[in-house]
Amino acid sequence: MKIVRFTVGSDTHSGRLEGDDIHIWDGHSNHRKYPLEEVRLLPPCEPSKIVAVGLNYRDHAEELHMALPTEPLLFLKPSTAVLGPGDAIILPPQSQRVDYEAELAVVIGKTARGVLLAEAADYILGYACLNDVTARDLQAKDGQWTRAKGFDTFCPIGPWIETELDHKDLKIELFLNGTLKQSSRTANLIFNPFELVAFISNIMTLLPGDVIATGTPSGIGPMLTGDEVEVRIEGIGSLFNLVSTKER
Amino acid sequence: MKIVRFTVGSDTHSGRLEGDDIHIWDGHSNHRKYPLEEVRLLPPCEPSKIVAVGLNYRDHAEELHMALPTEPLLFLKPSTAVLGPGDAIILPPQSQRVDYEAELAVVIGKTARGVLLAEAADYILGYACLNDVTARDLQAKDGQWTRAKGFDTFCPIGPWIETELDHKDLKIELFLNGTLKQSSRTANLIFNPFELVAFISNIMTLLPGDVIATGTPSGIGPMLTGDEVEVRIEGIGSLFNLVSTKER
Repeated sequence: MKIVRFTVGSDTHSGRLEGDDIHIWDGHSNHRKYPLEEVRLLPPCEPSKIVAVGLNYRDHAEELHMALPTEPLLFLKPSTAVLGPGDAIILPPQSQRVDYEAELAVVIGKTARGVLLAEAADYILGYACLNDVTARDLQAKDGQWTRAKGFDTFCPIGPWIETELDHKDLKIELFLNGTLKQSSRTANLIFNPFELVAFISNIMTLLPGDVIATGTPSGIGPMLTGDEVEVRIEGIGSLFNLVSTKER
Repeated sequence: MKIVRFTVGSDTHSGRLEGDDIHIWDGHSNHRKYPLEEVRLLPPCEPSKIVAVGLNYRDHAEELHMALPTEPLLFLKPSTAVLGPGDAIILPPQSQRVDYEAELAVVIGKTARGVLLAEAADYILGYACLNDVTARDLQAKDGQWTRAKGFDTFCPIGPWIETELDHKDLKIELFLNGTLKQSSRTANLIFNPFELVAFISNIMTLLPGDVIATGTPSGIGPMLTGDEVEVRIEGIGSLFNLVSTKER
């Protein structure tokens, strides 16, 4: 099932996408549906936090000649960075280089605290595409990655949450203005979604709607004003965003 | 004015503390009051994020023979780490050394985005005591500070929000089992609350109830099970917490 959030006029709804129609579930109005092309999609969840993972693709680590990590390296992106499908990533004046990073997002379905690996799947609602937008120059300057990855609009998520997906070997790609820039498979993940739910929930409680950004493969690079960036993941779909220097 | 959140029985209220009485403001029941000693205080705000600042006390930087930073160094603590006055900091099994860090907390009063320094004061609701609890060994191991500072219970805030306070030169102290461990004055802050609101809000939007943890002075050190830790700030009051290895 594909779970979407969207607006029609001034109303916000949640629903499930079937073919090109969205069936909304507002309880009493279960039967209504809207054509996908007539709505504005929103970020499919409203995370209280985004827990992201550093170097987590085997091919990327090898490319960088870095030893594989023995534990996930965590950082946080603030909820204020979340951006919906189609919306504009705003390049901030503080940075001279802002990069895309295609990532598989894990969306939490129920409160997860001290979860065992064998039970981790029960806490996952589904999966989405995510772009871990990063001001590369500030990342290097600060050491801590919070500023570099924390600007408003730096966390596009979408286009929906796919709840029926085997995460084990999915193609993940990034296209910049239609040109393939990143291409890998989730089989290259060093720590898979189940391992991440277990690891993270033994540190901090994960709440429904929270997101784990599982890391990016090789091929990262900069975006410029006017670019169109697409994260495409097999079995989920495509997350498109524009790049701008102006406020929407 | 001192703003408190508290529970009485199964009810949660907000109110203002006057002397030893809390006057609640639930709209229709504006006249009710409770003795402070009969309620259980909660964290005085419910932040969507806690934005914390690294090395930000001049005396601490000098002690470490480090150059003064030219910009605030930011990191995030998750909202799930927030802990109320009197509650127990839980030492996690993953760490062998968990430290206290006394800090002045700035509580945001209204949505702050791209704020100018001259207007920053308008966005501050008030100030509280905060303990930026840190797993020192994991901080060194990970490089990124998210895990070390992100465990559940690692962000005690309280005991209330003081809305009428000049932040410029307040004594800030930490007591461990009654022994003074940290002592400085906010006059030693490298970046003051107004500068921090301006700097941060030009990166990420600050929401009402969000907290800025302004950094800790010299004298940090470890806590052990059974300890009682107190952050005391002139003009605000004292934030007490217990230290435990068991879940409450």
